[in-house]
Parts: sequence; C-alpha cells; structure tokens
Amino acid sequence: MMDYDILIIGSGPAGQHAAWQAAHMGKKAAIIERKPSIGGAGLQTGTIPSKALREAAYLASRTGQGMREATHHARHGVMADAVRRKDMVIAQQESVILKRLLKSGVALIPGEAAFVDEHTLEVTDNNGASRRLSAEVILLATGSRPRRPSDIPFDKETVLDSTSILKLKKLPRSLLVVGGGVIACEFVSIFAALGVEVSVVDSHDQLLAYLSDDVVGVLADSFENMGVQLHMKERVVAIRKEDAGVLTLLESGKKMHTEAVLYAMGRTPNALSLHTPNAGIELDNGWISVNKHFQSSVPHIYAVGDLIGRPALASTGMEQGRTAVAHAFGETSQAMPANLPMAIYAIPEISWVGKTEKEAIREKLSYVVGRGFYKESARGQIIGDSNGLVKLIVDTQTHKLIGVHIAGEHASELIHTGQLLMHFNGTVHDLVANVFNYPTLAECYKLAALDCLHKLP
Amino acid sequence: MMDYDILIIGSGPAGQHAAWQAAHMGKKAAIIERKPSIGGAGLQTGTIPSKALREAAYLASRTGQGMREATHHARHGVMADAVRRKDMVIAQQESVILKRLLKSGVALIPGEAAFVDEHTLEVTDNNGASRRLSAEVILLATGSRPRRPSDIPFDKETVLDSTSILKLKKLPRSLLVVGGGVIACEFVSIFAALGVEVSVVDSHDQLLAYLSDDVVGVLADSFENMGVQLHMKERVVAIRKEDAGVLTLLESGKKMHTEAVLYAMGRTPNALSLHTPNAGIELDNGWISVNKHFQSSVPHIYAVGDLIGRPALASTGMEQGRTAVAHAFGETSQAMPANLPMAIYAIPEISWVGKTEKEAIREKLSYVVGRGFYKESARGQIIGDSNGLVKLIVDTQTHKLIGVHIAGEHASELIHTGQLLMHFNGTVHDLVANVFNYPTLAECYKLAALDCLHKLP
Repeated sequence: MMDYDILIIGSGPAGQHAAWQAAHMGKKAAIIERKPSIGGAGLQTGTIPSKALREAAYLASRTGQGMREATHHARHGVMADAVRRKDMVIAQQESVILKRLLKSGVALIPGEAAFVDEHTLEVTDNNGASRRLSAEVILLATGSRPRRPSDIPFDKETVLDSTSILKLKKLPRSLLVVGGGVIACEFVSIFAALGVEVSVVDSHDQLLAYLSDDVVGVLADSFENMGVQLHMKERVVAIRKEDAGVLTLLESGKKMHTEAVLYAMGRTPNALSLHTPNAGIELDNGWISVNKHFQSSVPHIYAVGDLIGRPALASTGMEQGRTAVAHAFGETSQAMPANLPMAIYAIPEISWVGKTEKEAIREKLSYVVGRGFYKESARGQIIGDSNGLVKLIVDTQTHKLIGVHIAGEHASELIHTGQLLMHFNGTVHDLVANVFNYPTLAECYKLAALDCLHKLP
Repeated sequence: MMDYDILIIGSGPAGQHAAWQAAHMGKKAAIIERKPSIGGAGLQTGTIPSKALREAAYLASRTGQGMREATHHARHGVMADAVRRKDMVIAQQESVILKRLLKSGVALIPGEAAFVDEHTLEVTDNNGASRRLSAEVILLATGSRPRRPSDIPFDKETVLDSTSILKLKKLPRSLLVVGGGVIACEFVSIFAALGVEVSVVDSHDQLLAYLSDDVVGVLADSFENMGVQLHMKERVVAIRKEDAGVLTLLESGKKMHTEAVLYAMGRTPNALSLHTPNAGIELDNGWISVNKHFQSSVPHIYAVGDLIGRPALASTGMEQGRTAVAHAFGETSQAMPANLPMAIYAIPEISWVGKTEKEAIREKLSYVVGRGFYKESARGQIIGDSNGLVKLIVDTQTHKLIGVHIAGEHASELIHTGQLLMHFNGTVHDLVANVFNYPTLAECYKLAALDCLHKLP
C-alpha cells in the first residue's frame, strides 16, 4: 500500500496544476516543497516578480517619471514602490494558490525530496528530520535556477543573476547585461525604463536570435530610444569586481566599467539533489529527458516544467503538469494543445504563436507575410506606441495562419485572438470579415490581414 | 450619364469605409463633407478625442497624479497635456485617412449636401457657391450630434454637451453629469480620474440600464472609489446659470450647485438638412429607416452609421458602410457579421459580444454564467485592477457561448478572443483546453470557463 497516488516535487506552476488535475481525478496527491514558500520560481524569484517590476518601470516610462531626466533619487522612489508592489502581489498569489490547494485536498509537505527507489522518496525538512513517502506515480517539477559559472564572482550586490537582481535595494547608475535571450531582454527593458544606463553584450548578431529581424527590430528600436548600448557578436572573457563597480573584459579587447553586471546566460535544472539514479533515471546533460507524455525512462515517473528544458515558460509548465497527470491516471486522450503562445515581457512585449518566420523558411513553406502597424491604428497613436507590429504568416495555398507575431504593448494579451483563430483553423479572411472595437490595437489584426490579401496570389 | 457611381455624404468612419469599399470594387466614388476637416464625430468631436483624453486620465489615475490629493494646478497640467496629445492624434489620423482616400482615388468634395431629386444632390460650400452632382447610388452617413433641448442654457463654458466639453480650456472643480448612458459614463470616468468632484443624475435605477448589475457593478465600484456621487431615479427639472457655476433642480426637490454641467442625454441625427423628402424619403422621428441591406425606402439610397440609430458605434458604422456598398453594387452575399463587439471606454472599460444576460432572460434561454475575476489572476494583481471581471453566458445544452462580457482594464481588446470563439461556434471546453500566456488578464477566460464547468449539469 502506497502513501499517495501521486507525489509531486515542487510547488511551482507545473506542480500546482499537476496537483489540481490529480485532485480533480479523485487521486490522493501531495506536493513536496523544499522552500519555506510556495509557488517556485514562477511566483517567488522569476516570472511574477519580474513582471511586477516591469509594470512599475513601464508606467514610469509612459508618464515620464522614469526617463533619464529624472533625478536618481526620484528613480529610487519608483524602484522602492515597485518592490513593495511586487511583494504584495506575491503574497496575494500565494494566498490564492494555497486556498486552491487546500480546497482540492492536496497535502503540502515541507522538505527536500530524493529518490530511495522508483516508488519511494526520502523527504528531509529544514531541521534535518526525514521521512519516507511512497506513491504510485511521482512527478518531478523542481524547476530551474540561473546558471552561475564558477568563474563569475556573483555577490548579490554588484555581480548579479536574474534572481538576486530582483532583491536589489538600490538602483545602480549603470548596468551591463550579459546575454541576449528572453530574461536578458526583460531586465534590459526594466532597468532602462527606470533610467539606468544599460549596455548589453551578446554573442549573436541579433537579440532573441530565433526570431525574425522585423519583430526583434521593434524591441531594438525601443532599446535605442531608451539609450541602451548594444555590443553584439561579443563575448565576455572575464568579470572582475573593483572598488567602485565591476570591470568586464570582452574578447574584442573592450573594457567595460559599470556599477553592476547582470549575468543572464541560461538556466540550470534543479535535478541533482533528486538522486534520480536511485530510481533508474540518468540525467541528460543535467536535464531529465521525457517522451511526449512527459514520462521519463521509468514510465510512472514524470517530469514537467523547466526541468525538461524549452520553452521553460510558466504557462507551458502548467499545461504539461495537467497533461502528464491525466496520462498517468489513464486519460490518454488528453494531449498538449498544438498552439502554445510564447511571451517575452520586455518593453514592449513580444508574443507569438505558431511558427516563426525563420522556421517557415527552414521548412520551405510557401507563405506570405502581412503586417499591421500600431501607428496606423488610432489606439496605437493614443497610447503613443508608434513601433508596434502585428505580423501574420499565412499559407499561400490555404490562407490559414502559420504563425502570428506581435511586438508592441499588450502583445501577450492580444496574441490569444490569433491563437484561437489557429485553433479553429481559421483563415486570413475571417480576420478581414471581423469587426473590431474602435479604437483598439486589435484592429491591427485586420490591417495585417488586408495586407496579406494584397500579397496572396 | 451620372457624375459618380456613388456619392457618400459624410466622411466619418461609416462614410470612409463605404468609399474604400466602392473604390475596391472599381467604382467612381466621392465623399461630400460639410466641415473643414475629415473624419466626422468619430475622429473630430467624439470617439477619438474622448478616448485620447481618457488615456491621459487613466494614466493619471494609475500613477496617482490625478488623485484628489493633487493640486488643482497639477490637474490642469494633466488636462493640458491630454488636450495637446488629443490634437496630435487627430492630426495623425486625418493624415492616415486622407492618404487612404487619395490612394483609392476617392474624390473629396467640400460642402453641405441636400437632395434635389432621388439621384441629384445640391452641394453648397462655405462661400455659398453651389453645384449639382448626380450618382447611381447615394449613401447617407451624416452621423449625429449631441441632443440639445432648447430649455437647457448651453454656453460651451459651464453648461456643456459632449462636444463642447472636449474643448474646455480649464478643468472645473465640480461637474454634474446628466444621464447614465455610454457617453455619460465615459465622461464621468475621465473627469473623476482627473480629480474633479463628479456627480451624476439619471432616471434609471442603474447606470447602463440594459447591462446586468454584476457587469455595471464593476464600473459603479470604480466610480465610488473615485468619489463620484450617484443620484439615481432622479430627473432634472431645470438647469440655470448662476454667477458662479450652475444650479440644477431635480424632481425630488434637490438643488445641486456645480461649477459645470454636462448634459449627455442622447444624440440627434444629422438628417434635416439633407432634404430627404425631395428624394421621396420621410424621416422616422428624425432618423432614417433602413432594411437589413441598409436601403432606405428608395432602394438606391442607403443610410448607415449614427444616422440610423443604435448601436451608433464607429466600429459598427464602418462595417455598415462596407456592407451597404457591397450590396449596392451587386455583392449580395456579404452580410453584417453576427457577432459585433460593443465597447464603453469608461475607467475601467466595459466590452461585450453576443447577448446580454437581460436578453438571455427575456428570451427564456437555458444558460449558466461563469465568472473569472481579475483579482484571481496574477496580472490583475500586478496592474492593481481588483474589480475586473470576465463573464461567460453559456448555453446549458450545447455549451456554446451566448455572450461574453468583460468589465475591467483592456476589456475592449480582450473581447475579441471571445468574439472569435463565438464566430467559430466554439464551446467553453475550447477555453478550458487553451493555454494562455502567464501572467495575463486573458487567463480570466479560462477561470470563467472552469467556473462554468462546475455549474453545467
């Protein structure tokens, strides 16, 4: 007799949704959490705190408070307000999650879990006390943490990772961001909007290298307007702490002095402490490999979320958790949806669903591109977003959408309209015939669809 | 031989889209405009200016600038900035519209048009010069203006209508709004957010009487938070200008002294000067009656937009213009879409598509209601909108959506996701299965859909 039907390790977005799904299916479920707080990186150190800070920075940039002309003191004020707001949001969300877990009858067990065998975990709490728990199904959702190479002198004050930067008490005057991916771009946006002098070092020739240049161009323009200095095709050779700030040496020989450095070059899975070999699971370069049902090499042990790699988004992790649990308890019909939205909460936001244009080219698809610009819409002008873009990638034969990309304010919200259109196999003609509220940014869907019509053979 | 294939009277949203449709079909089209500017009330005196002002007021309310604690001087600053921004948006939009008209080959003829006979218009310009123009098809899109009863002492300074209030040079300290409809609610929001003491007199027992109380309650809460005083089930007996401000007498005997009054009790069609009887068209209580193809009693004379009454929205007018012209030139397959979105740009916004709950009750439909609250979503908390609501009205048998109502920030944008779902006859299960970006307000669709599932038999 096992203790539980399912043990879930990690209370982040993937673990929570796995637990709710199990409870919904009438299963006895428990979540094991090693931190003294619930929600994982999604709530505590990653997604939510950075988005709360972003909202404050965004508002500051809209109302001029955050601009470079503001005094450093005034910018500190904005930052302090933002941190308070962030802490409030985290507390409220913790309360919402906890309530839902308790209502569902999911147990919450504090401690760090390690495999004893393929059905048994040893859970050790903060006081060192440990107990063994067994379950039919075990789901790993332990997430990831910032990658911290040993030669980078992280100190939580001047040399930062994406977790420690969220706990800064004072705003640096200058910040060098190492990396050009999602997390890097989000923090560049936040600190530049708060009036910090930001520079970026990235080895690619473009930020967010997998996206096409027209989409990334909207972000690059925004960065330029905020005075961000880009150093592309450059690599960091060394980072050294100095009396006042940090010295960063680049491969090209450039030396950069800044008050702080954010090292944002990828994340590392939280897998080692699980002792997966005791369950017969070998790590794949540190990560856990799974099949399309999220089963590891041991069929009743599932892994979801950041722990299995890309896209490593909270939204996707939630769905993976739900899908994995449904599969584990016999609902085999439930698969992951085909169209998952992706979002980058930079200033402005970037969001997309379906294929990127680079993928369409790689797969030699026959397509046309239609664009609707925010500045052509009255609302784009009202909110002062002159760079925003809705881009449709449309199949030349079927006129169906292959992908939708939005770069501009509210992109993360607007994308769902295109996503539902793709879900129903709609065409560009459905968008042309649709009546949109006036004035809205969503009208850009219609403008982009009309642009497609002109180009379709 | 007629001068034009189609003559369009009025260059507002309905007229513009009619003209583009005609040009698209290869027809020789002209727009006749009596004002020295294009765009009609949609651009010049109504939709766009009020939305531009709303955006400034909204931002002020988010960042605390507009709050009651601010000095009157500071609030004037916000108002002045808003007016400048508004004028810029209008100029930019004029340029966009003009460019599209010229590119399409549509002629723009200045002057006031009146029927001579059913194919001929006499167009009189500002200098009194007139000429006659004839066309196969005539489309009336002359719009509407605020209703101004003769016993209300309008003066453009203290006793205002919804056009003159947009030209105010200084912010009043107190404002009484007469009316509880869309336009009234939008101006209540704007001036309350700017820190003006606003009171409202309306004869109904609820603002926006055709909407259900849960939806309107979100707005009422926002008004309460901004200190707005509501006087419901009250009628105005008289409005009198005084040395300092305005005295308003109510049926109940109450006397209200305010610095300014906005009278927002409906709009009047711009139909009289058309001399429609010369074309054999009698007005219906001032309005023009049309069939579902937007034909008047004379088949080749069409009327669209505000001139034909509800919903009198720019978005709907555009589509009516397009549909009418398509019909006039033989594309009879093109009908108005079944699901038109409605939007009220108050603070917060309200938007809906499909039926209201009151309609569902009246039609004795079998339905359940599901609600997703902004405060349950992380983004709702991040942006500090704790009252927002996504409400789904779902058919008990088919699980299809009968209506979607959103009251909260960005409602006018978010509604299109529900609208497309309805367009494709989707069910509440499509929303449950959909993965939404995290954190977004759009997640409330999923929360509302899950709420429905609990209630469906």
